[in-house]
Amino acid sequence: MEKIVLDGKNLTLDQIYEVVYHGAIVELSEEAMKRAEKAKQVLYRMVDSETPVYGTNRGVGWNKDRKVYTEYFDQYNKNLLRSHSLCVPPYCTEEEVRAIMLIRLNTALYGCAGLSRDVLERYRDFLNKRIHPLVPRRSSVGEADLAVNAMIGMSIIGENDVLYQGQPTDSRKAMENEGMKPLVLGPKDGLGIVSSNSQAAAMAALLLREVKELTDNSNLIYCIGLEGLNGQIQQLDGSVTEAKGFPEQTECAQECLHMLEGSYLFDGTEGKALQDPLSFRDSAFINGAVLECVKLLEMSLNQHLNHSDDNPCVLPDEERVSVSCNFEPLNLALKAEMLNIALNHISKGACHRILKLADPSFTGLPRFLSPDGGKTVIGYSTIQKTFTSLDTENRALANPSSMDFFALSGYIEDHASNAVLILEKSFKIVDNLRYILGMELMHAAQAVDLRGNYKLGKCTGKAFEEYRKIVPFLDKDRKLSVDIQASYEAVKSNKLLKASGCCNSVPRQ
Amino acid sequence: MEKIVLDGKNLTLDQIYEVVYHGAIVELSEEAMKRAEKAKQVLYRMVDSETPVYGTNRGVGWNKDRKVYTEYFDQYNKNLLRSHSLCVPPYCTEEEVRAIMLIRLNTALYGCAGLSRDVLERYRDFLNKRIHPLVPRRSSVGEADLAVNAMIGMSIIGENDVLYQGQPTDSRKAMENEGMKPLVLGPKDGLGIVSSNSQAAAMAALLLREVKELTDNSNLIYCIGLEGLNGQIQQLDGSVTEAKGFPEQTECAQECLHMLEGSYLFDGTEGKALQDPLSFRDSAFINGAVLECVKLLEMSLNQHLNHSDDNPCVLPDEERVSVSCNFEPLNLALKAEMLNIALNHISKGACHRILKLADPSFTGLPRFLSPDGGKTVIGYSTIQKTFTSLDTENRALANPSSMDFFALSGYIEDHASNAVLILEKSFKIVDNLRYILGMELMHAAQAVDLRGNYKLGKCTGKAFEEYRKIVPFLDKDRKLSVDIQASYEAVKSNKLLKASGCCNSVPRQ
Amino acid sequence: MEKIVLDGKNLTLDQIYEVVYHGAIVELSEEAMKRAEKAKQVLYRMVDSETPVYGTNRGVGWNKDRKVYTEYFDQYNKNLLRSHSLCVPPYCTEEEVRAIMLIRLNTALYGCAGLSRDVLERYRDFLNKRIHPLVPRRSSVGEADLAVNAMIGMSIIGENDVLYQGQPTDSRKAMENEGMKPLVLGPKDGLGIVSSNSQAAAMAALLLREVKELTDNSNLIYCIGLEGLNGQIQQLDGSVTEAKGFPEQTECAQECLHMLEGSYLFDGTEGKALQDPLSFRDSAFINGAVLECVKLLEMSLNQHLNHSDDNPCVLPDEERVSVSCNFEPLNLALKAEMLNIALNHISKGACHRILKLADPSFTGLPRFLSPDGGKTVIGYSTIQKTFTSLDTENRALANPSSMDFFALSGYIEDHASNAVLILEKSFKIVDNLRYILGMELMHAAQAVDLRGNYKLGKCTGKAFEEYRKIVPFLDKDRKLSVDIQASYEAVKSNKLLKASGCCNSVPRQ
Amino acid sequence: MEKIVLDGKNLTLDQIYEVVYHGAIVELSEEAMKRAEKAKQVLYRMVDSETPVYGTNRGVGWNKDRKVYTEYFDQYNKNLLRSHSLCVPPYCTEEEVRAIMLIRLNTALYGCAGLSRDVLERYRDFLNKRIHPLVPRRSSVGEADLAVNAMIGMSIIGENDVLYQGQPTDSRKAMENEGMKPLVLGPKDGLGIVSSNSQAAAMAALLLREVKELTDNSNLIYCIGLEGLNGQIQQLDGSVTEAKGFPEQTECAQECLHMLEGSYLFDGTEGKALQDPLSFRDSAFINGAVLECVKLLEMSLNQHLNHSDDNPCVLPDEERVSVSCNFEPLNLALKAEMLNIALNHISKGACHRILKLADPSFTGLPRFLSPDGGKTVIGYSTIQKTFTSLDTENRALANPSSMDFFALSGYIEDHASNAVLILEKSFKIVDNLRYILGMELMHAAQAVDLRGNYKLGKCTGKAFEEYRKIVPFLDKDRKLSVDIQASYEAVKSNKLLKASGCCNSVPRQ
Repeated sequence: MEKIVLDGKNLTLDQIYEVVYHGAIVELSEEAMKRAEKAKQVLYRMVDSETPVYGTNRGVGWNKDRKVYTEYFDQYNKNLLRSHSLCVPPYCTEEEVRAIMLIRLNTALYGCAGLSRDVLERYRDFLNKRIHPLVPRRSSVGEADLAVNAMIGMSIIGENDVLYQGQPTDSRKAMENEGMKPLVLGPKDGLGIVSSNSQAAAMAALLLREVKELTDNSNLIYCIGLEGLNGQIQQLDGSVTEAKGFPEQTECAQECLHMLEGSYLFDGTEGKALQDPLSFRDSAFINGAVLECVKLLEMSLNQHLNHSDDNPCVLPDEERVSVSCNFEPLNLALKAEMLNIALNHISKGACHRILKLADPSFTGLPRFLSPDGGKTVIGYSTIQKTFTSLDTENRALANPSSMDFFALSGYIEDHASNAVLILEKSFKIVDNLRYILGMELMHAAQAVDLRGNYKLGKCTGKAFEEYRKIVPFLDKDRKLSVDIQASYEAVKSNKLLKASGCCNSVPRQ
Repeated sequence: MEKIVLDGKNLTLDQIYEVVYHGAIVELSEEAMKRAEKAKQVLYRMVDSETPVYGTNRGVGWNKDRKVYTEYFDQYNKNLLRSHSLCVPPYCTEEEVRAIMLIRLNTALYGCAGLSRDVLERYRDFLNKRIHPLVPRRSSVGEADLAVNAMIGMSIIGENDVLYQGQPTDSRKAMENEGMKPLVLGPKDGLGIVSSNSQAAAMAALLLREVKELTDNSNLIYCIGLEGLNGQIQQLDGSVTEAKGFPEQTECAQECLHMLEGSYLFDGTEGKALQDPLSFRDSAFINGAVLECVKLLEMSLNQHLNHSDDNPCVLPDEERVSVSCNFEPLNLALKAEMLNIALNHISKGACHRILKLADPSFTGLPRFLSPDGGKTVIGYSTIQKTFTSLDTENRALANPSSMDFFALSGYIEDHASNAVLILEKSFKIVDNLRYILGMELMHAAQAVDLRGNYKLGKCTGKAFEEYRKIVPFLDKDRKLSVDIQASYEAVKSNKLLKASGCCNSVPRQ
Repeated sequence: MEKIVLDGKNLTLDQIYEVVYHGAIVELSEEAMKRAEKAKQVLYRMVDSETPVYGTNRGVGWNKDRKVYTEYFDQYNKNLLRSHSLCVPPYCTEEEVRAIMLIRLNTALYGCAGLSRDVLERYRDFLNKRIHPLVPRRSSVGEADLAVNAMIGMSIIGENDVLYQGQPTDSRKAMENEGMKPLVLGPKDGLGIVSSNSQAAAMAALLLREVKELTDNSNLIYCIGLEGLNGQIQQLDGSVTEAKGFPEQTECAQECLHMLEGSYLFDGTEGKALQDPLSFRDSAFINGAVLECVKLLEMSLNQHLNHSDDNPCVLPDEERVSVSCNFEPLNLALKAEMLNIALNHISKGACHRILKLADPSFTGLPRFLSPDGGKTVIGYSTIQKTFTSLDTENRALANPSSMDFFALSGYIEDHASNAVLILEKSFKIVDNLRYILGMELMHAAQAVDLRGNYKLGKCTGKAFEEYRKIVPFLDKDRKLSVDIQASYEAVKSNKLLKASGCCNSVPRQ
Repeated sequence: MEKIVLDGKNLTLDQIYEVVYHGAIVELSEEAMKRAEKAKQVLYRMVDSETPVYGTNRGVGWNKDRKVYTEYFDQYNKNLLRSHSLCVPPYCTEEEVRAIMLIRLNTALYGCAGLSRDVLERYRDFLNKRIHPLVPRRSSVGEADLAVNAMIGMSIIGENDVLYQGQPTDSRKAMENEGMKPLVLGPKDGLGIVSSNSQAAAMAALLLREVKELTDNSNLIYCIGLEGLNGQIQQLDGSVTEAKGFPEQTECAQECLHMLEGSYLFDGTEGKALQDPLSFRDSAFINGAVLECVKLLEMSLNQHLNHSDDNPCVLPDEERVSVSCNFEPLNLALKAEMLNIALNHISKGACHRILKLADPSFTGLPRFLSPDGGKTVIGYSTIQKTFTSLDTENRALANPSSMDFFALSGYIEDHASNAVLILEKSFKIVDNLRYILGMELMHAAQAVDLRGNYKLGKCTGKAFEEYRKIVPFLDKDRKLSVDIQASYEAVKSNKLLKASGCCNSVPRQ
């Protein structure tokens, strides 16, 4: 099994996926640990010299004006965790909890957190021993995901259950079983545990993978649909897209051409419209715009994963502690807001393509792709309501949330990003899109079958074949909810992408 | 057990709750059944005379231009159900399915549906025998909830599983067990089964009950909080509210005064501010505005429950069939959109009241209601992020959806209301509000305790006492997620309302 | 010229329109004036007895804890007006200012305001002498429209310019010219002047008239379009709409049947589709739903116009003053939010009808209604982008705003309704709709012409004839922006409605 | 006066501002003109060989299936302009029209448009002779801004008025006066004129300048406010922001430190809170996030300005014409949607800072910054409603619009970006922000004055001095709308930025 060495500066998305989905073992760079210890010593020096430091020898939020006395450090920091244990259901998945712990661990290793060695090693051990705190997911306003982190911290001190060996377990027992003891906390350990955007970052990390796979699925299904339509491919041509000069669009167009390699669509324009409905012409452009949003979010996330989001910010090399607002993840939140809007364009595009595939004036095929021309078989008619209703839900999910907040904690905490909520909505949009793309696939494949024996592309051909093992040709009316669910699963599992042999994103769940 | 006789014209919300939650037995009025049979005969006459009738001897949607031949009636109507079986998860609750079947049965009995006697009796029997079709909830665009109704229909013809005696069961088996056979369908039976807004109506019916209970809970918790604050009650005075002349507000104000009867708040204005923060002064006005929205939705729903939403509309007395768009539930959808916005004002009001209860400059009590003045106990600080994050979610859920739709089925079905989606959002807002009100309750009760030994109101006193059995005084920091969840349950179960002896809505789940 | 006697309890919308648009003279009921003076005396008694009263001998907002000394009453009340003169452009129209002054005057006469006789008479005189304060329109959060009212008050004390005899004029001069002097203010006069939702109420009053006219225009244009389409009228049938039981929809359907009386559409179903696209079938239902929203808003407004929105609330009969939040207009704001959503359904419906009128598969007429079948004349093609872009703007304007606010004035004023902003958006939607309906009219009339010599309805015939005087048949491509603007004006001026002789709303601008 | 040579590949934003605001003269690169002519010849060859080309010898949109005959080229292309002249008010500014013409000219010179030499030179001449077509601004759905471009084209052929020498003038006359004749159009000239996103691009270009200036103003005003507050500067420290690693935030923080150079704020932490309200701590982070959005939009725009957005896409070097959807500006629209959301964070931040400046518990200064401690002067109280009401308007303007569209032109044009509408909203947000920042400035300066004689920063000191020439210290209550308007103008004109000597953006209007 792979090993990942964390040093606070070099964590990649692929490493995260290795740890989260494949149980890669986590180790801590000794150099980073030394930096961490140096930071802790800076804090102790501040405490000794009675220099007021936020959340260390002073309270947090409004209580920043209140002293925390040395003899109460363990109690205070545990009280901080308890009073921050505020999450409401539903629960985080195990994958999310792993990603949260991993990311918090890495950003703490950057060196400005002031967490003690014990705490850092405990995160590592929980990951490696698969001790997964049970944590409801809602409560963050996106300026440090305090409550989720606090409840992870509660497990570390033995006061919150965990999932261990597949069972909900008292965290004290789980730790005991693995030879650990509940931790004693020192100055700023409580704040250091909770004050991180690790939930938002973890969600963004997992989301990016899902969106890339979705975009690849969309490209593939679009290509099969284009074969069902007998559509134009001119707009994908490199000379044409380069005249526009938008790199991600060229990238998507090239991916589509690659997927279609060898298809009858390259054999000429006979029987084709002068140009296809925009939803068909424009698909690589829309997906390209989404891909650009993905890259921008990824860029911000990579920066975030390998820097500090702590407040106060301990600067070990300068031997001082500074007020900061490095926990502000607005740049990340804004890109997630944009991504949610962008994903709606995939949603609209897919819906409009399906409507066209059911329309003889565009396909020359029977209405609703009925196999007998509608004589006794109705085919895909009312299904239009199902996918458009999901699109309407997506529309609602794309409304922004980052600016909806209150002034809290004595009116002092008067900004928020709502990053977690925005990303929650992203996951819902993605899941709805799997259904919509699944229904696009049903239509695309049916159109291919009805069009007859034309040669499909290199990748589209293999994908089509694989799909027909899962959902057979619709030869008579049947309970379509079954086909919809199976098509959704085909998208979610990346089965067709894998079969096609052509995907960019490497699905490996 | 109570019996409810359905005749298409007199179904009440209370009867629905009896059938849905308490298993009241359903009977069919013989007069209504005769009207239904007359309607069916009108259809047969049209078929015999080869008069084209939508969805009867012609197809539906775009296929309205296609003949349906007499010999294919059973097959066509079953195909219609199959091709309309299009729902995607999550699943409807059993309560929802009961309400949907009940409402469809009643509106069909109004007399314009043209459903056969067998079909009508089958709905009755499913209700009475507790055979509950398993139906995912999503797919409707709110112009007749076709797919959900189709999948109920599929159970009736033996092609969709049911929940029976607590177990997922093949519907053929369940029917066999109860001595029924899968049905044979006649002209328009398919369309008659699917073409109804019964899902939206069912959701509205169940929602109204939840919102009324929520509003009562809000009034009660507000009153406890007012006692925690030592607040003004002048604004609730009948002479004052009558000068404004808004009936539902006067109603809420009177309910609050009633709940507070006997409270120390009536003992004078000593130590009180000249006037309280608006969130405290305004609560009965906000809840009054919500109550008005509730009444307006209820009015529309009552009209809907006891009329026809069929197309085509069979007019048995005039012996003809007419095109209609009586399935248009826009008036209902608009009121649900308004209600979602209104509920956000309860959400905001509660959040602002909590912020004030944590602020010594308004309460004269310790910051964050810490029991020891913050010396060692932090109390309710970061919890402010939890409830405002839910409020932000509510804000997003209040964005309208009714106008987001496509032109479907050959571009012919070019209007929608998205009633079901809007109501889905209502339920989510209501559930989030239970958490928010739960946290308001935590603060209100803590403030009451900290203020000391003052006399509480008739109802608030009993409710407070009951609550303290569930969630004790916060004397030291503890894992607050436990208290939040318990407070949520106290609201959801109406436990405090019942204990208070003062609620208007009669909770009886 | 008509005279209107105000008594605080009987003001109607029609009277408002008389005063606003036709300069009806305003008089004050002597009984109401006596009640007003009694209220003032109650205030003086409070002052004499040094009982603290908000905004009287104590400050407002956060300053409620500060004394206002008797000798400073004039200065304090003027300072209050100055510090509340906070509006930002654009400016209110003269009609709006008239409506605001009229409504504030009437609600003050209800008797709870405590305004002095001089102030009340000054409002009357400004109205009757047409002295119209120049007031920018933006600043209110919809809990009393403080700043707009303050700037009107500033004109009354001679510190804000007015429009007088058509010219911007120093208000001192204008008053001098009419024999008035700048006023001296007494206790609570400042607060009494500013603390009213008169701007929101005025806007709602003017809006309702515009929306009713718009809905009538929509019904008329729909009917002409139905004649252009050769569409079905069955769905408008009284027996059918009564089976649905939704009164406003029956009302709209009956109005349409009335407008179409005598039309060839009644002559049989030859050449017609079995049923028309939903946008055609559903128009009276959509407009009926809008009409219901109009009625609900009107009901709330009528209640508002004839009650008190003052705080504190002076109760002259009980000789006391009470804290109140009677300025809370949430019920009104919520109905305006709903109306904005409802109006979007008119918008969508009109757009979809136009798309159908340009589509030969629905009309049997040339594509884009080109007069020569598209040989050399393009006709109405890209115009589809114009009206849908306005619809998209309407979609954005329908998003709710009532719940977006801050806690102000020491965090005390922690609720808002944003009624004014919501109504601003209503006016924009209505104006956009005039363009959209104008373009629907262009299509409807062109379709009627192309269909040939069929007999039009009683009202539609006259309206069509009138329209053709304004915009002639499109026989060749021309600059369409001219036709669009002319059609917009035809809708806005209600010219066709008047010519048709059939409108319900009585336009009389 | 500067000359700008256009070649389709090197146009910069600064050059655009030179042409738009300072009348720089435009020339055409001869090489680019040759490429353009080559493209035209490719089209003629297609026409001669009767190869169907969209919008050339075939119609556009749905009419792509219709032939355009050679002898009708001039008439067809003029008809295309006429039938596309569809804009509705309000009107574009002269600056916008100049930017639109300039950008269309440059993208056409890229070489894929196929516009004739005459047309290209005419655009140049209109710019250089300041002949500015009168064009209403609304109609685009953001897939090529057809109607606005068509109406510019109408001026070129003498059928639409222009603003010439400051007067609305018949375009024929204006051209005659400058020695030009109305043009004759060849194949694809009509489509080439209209089919460009030049309006969206022009708006984005002008917007970017305004947003950069606004952000600089925000940084400056924030710094003055920080001096008014006696706030912390630690969070701006380079070591701290580098630990976060977000470049634009470091950039903003450094700009603030630069503006504050020499300020008393660097003199120690005496009397300061341990950390300031987040709105103060976070300002450079928020503005940094906005700045990143600005850069991303600018990057997309620069790519757009120097490539082709034509369909069909003429490839002169390959001697062919290809279907394309290079007119898809979704990537640009998405960044504008994100920017609108980002700007709302400036809005919120400013509002919260103002609330804190009015609150003695944060400033130690009198409530509402009253000069006499509130004895007789009220100061800045109700002004809180004015700026929050504008913030609420901004909140509404930030809702996305890109995905709200219809399938048009025979359902073929089934995607849109609504780029123009989104940018319209951006301009409104920016203008509202000028008011909000103006009010922040009023508070910041008043706080500085009340705090007394402390040393201000290098830039903030000069800016403060300049501002006090425009708006004097508030020593008694006065009509505040005057001060608000003056402060707005100070922001809009960049007067303080210029006086400060420290701005990054170079205002030069």
